[in-house]
Amino acid sequence: MELWYTEKHTPAAGITLKCKGTLFSTTTRYQRIDVLETEEYGRMLLLDGLVMTTERDEFIYHEMLVHLAMHLHERAEEVLVIGGGDGGAVRELLRYPFVKKVLLCEIDRQVVETSKRFFPDISCGLGDERVEIVFEDGSKILKDTERKFDIIIVDSTDPIGAAKGLFTETFYSACKKALKEGGILCAQSESPIYHLPTMCEMKKAILSAGFSFARFYTAPVPTYPGGYWSWVVAGTGTFEIEMIKRNLLPEEGYAELKYFNTKLGLASFSLPNFLERAVGEP
Amino acid sequence: MELWYTEKHTPAAGITLKCKGTLFSTTTRYQRIDVLETEEYGRMLLLDGLVMTTERDEFIYHEMLVHLAMHLHERAEEVLVIGGGDGGAVRELLRYPFVKKVLLCEIDRQVVETSKRFFPDISCGLGDERVEIVFEDGSKILKDTERKFDIIIVDSTDPIGAAKGLFTETFYSACKKALKEGGILCAQSESPIYHLPTMCEMKKAILSAGFSFARFYTAPVPTYPGGYWSWVVAGTGTFEIEMIKRNLLPEEGYAELKYFNTKLGLASFSLPNFLERAVGEP
Repeated sequence: MELWYTEKHTPAAGITLKCKGTLFSTTTRYQRIDVLETEEYGRMLLLDGLVMTTERDEFIYHEMLVHLAMHLHERAEEVLVIGGGDGGAVRELLRYPFVKKVLLCEIDRQVVETSKRFFPDISCGLGDERVEIVFEDGSKILKDTERKFDIIIVDSTDPIGAAKGLFTETFYSACKKALKEGGILCAQSESPIYHLPTMCEMKKAILSAGFSFARFYTAPVPTYPGGYWSWVVAGTGTFEIEMIKRNLLPEEGYAELKYFNTKLGLASFSLPNFLERAVGEP
Repeated sequence: MELWYTEKHTPAAGITLKCKGTLFSTTTRYQRIDVLETEEYGRMLLLDGLVMTTERDEFIYHEMLVHLAMHLHERAEEVLVIGGGDGGAVRELLRYPFVKKVLLCEIDRQVVETSKRFFPDISCGLGDERVEIVFEDGSKILKDTERKFDIIIVDSTDPIGAAKGLFTETFYSACKKALKEGGILCAQSESPIYHLPTMCEMKKAILSAGFSFARFYTAPVPTYPGGYWSWVVAGTGTFEIEMIKRNLLPEEGYAELKYFNTKLGLASFSLPNFLERAVGEP
């Protein structure tokens, strides 16, 4: 028997991966969760049938989600991660010795449990003493808490279903309110190949929420739609791209990274014409 | 009926595209040629069943194949393109007013004919008076000709079948001999996701052939293996990356490009750690 998982990224294009089998499946009140064992990308986590992360290429997504924001901040000690129940963002944040507190706000407890069970290399930081986990809607925790953060990272699914509210001006306004002075918001912002309208709407909503800049950067992620992904960073001051050049991690910290280096981080903000024209940058 | 084209990039991973139908199929003495009409990527050219180019994303590959080498050369007037029978590389070269002569050396006449018939926007430069087309093996023409070029562009298929010889030290030596002083060799160099060993072998072969540098750069190409592609530039002088910053095209020339700009060109040489470590750069 040959078992192939196929994800349609649009009604007419997709990726197909040969699987050894299904390791786990469950349906929670929020979504369906599956873990497949693929031949090419190792174990793969799916939410509502869509690829969230794979053992082989998760490093690109998670490193790019975290290290740009960290380098654009003077010295981030308190970080809020919304979504990201797999723990990949947390793992990257904990590389910084000066990070004191990471609050992970994941709506679905079962995502965290599944990652702990099947993705030990991704979830490895979730038990760290600097990490606090709450199972809550990201929008709700921003309303309820008085705490303020240096960085807020939005590690969400696509803007459908549970994550829809995480792409709105209301949500970005709440993020702004929960950021300390000099704070940075960073969010995954979908594929430049298939989701340009979403990227444009995100930028508009972020700026409408009162942020003074919203800048996109990109990287290839083989198992994501179009094989090409984007993230957006926003802040209320000036966008100081040169800050990325600083070495913030101990030398061995950079050595452990498989994708990010400061030169590449700086370069990732140079957008191709079609994208720069669509999102109206810089 | 639903018709889906699936290309396996490895035995266990691939891309799948919905098709409206087959527009053309033929078998030449070198290979099988197909033209499919896809819903998401427009018309698609296949050689031996593998995606060579699609209307929707060809601009990324062709712009990145040509403009880096052009910007790394002082002023390239005579260019040899080996392979590239679809005409995409030629189209990009003709944007430069100072390019006097483009010699296109394509082994298979039927590729040129197919592109002229089905891909008018890609093959549009093939009738230009500055372009000369010969139907010949790339290795053979380098042996036979006394002509020398400012730039040699290797726009080949994968290192199997007809193109195998275009990835050898013997071939790169012949290229070096056919380059004028300050000349630049540029070749597509496969996917950093799936073909790292090929990239390493190419670099080794290029340096063994007497080039003093061989530097990789990358870009996302959705329909290519891993959605992530690489190219290599080689020369006999010093690698002067700052040359990419120069504006070589008239303003409207840059405005017509959909992917390349000089800032992005410079940035495309910043490699992710996993790739830099594998190919031993810089």
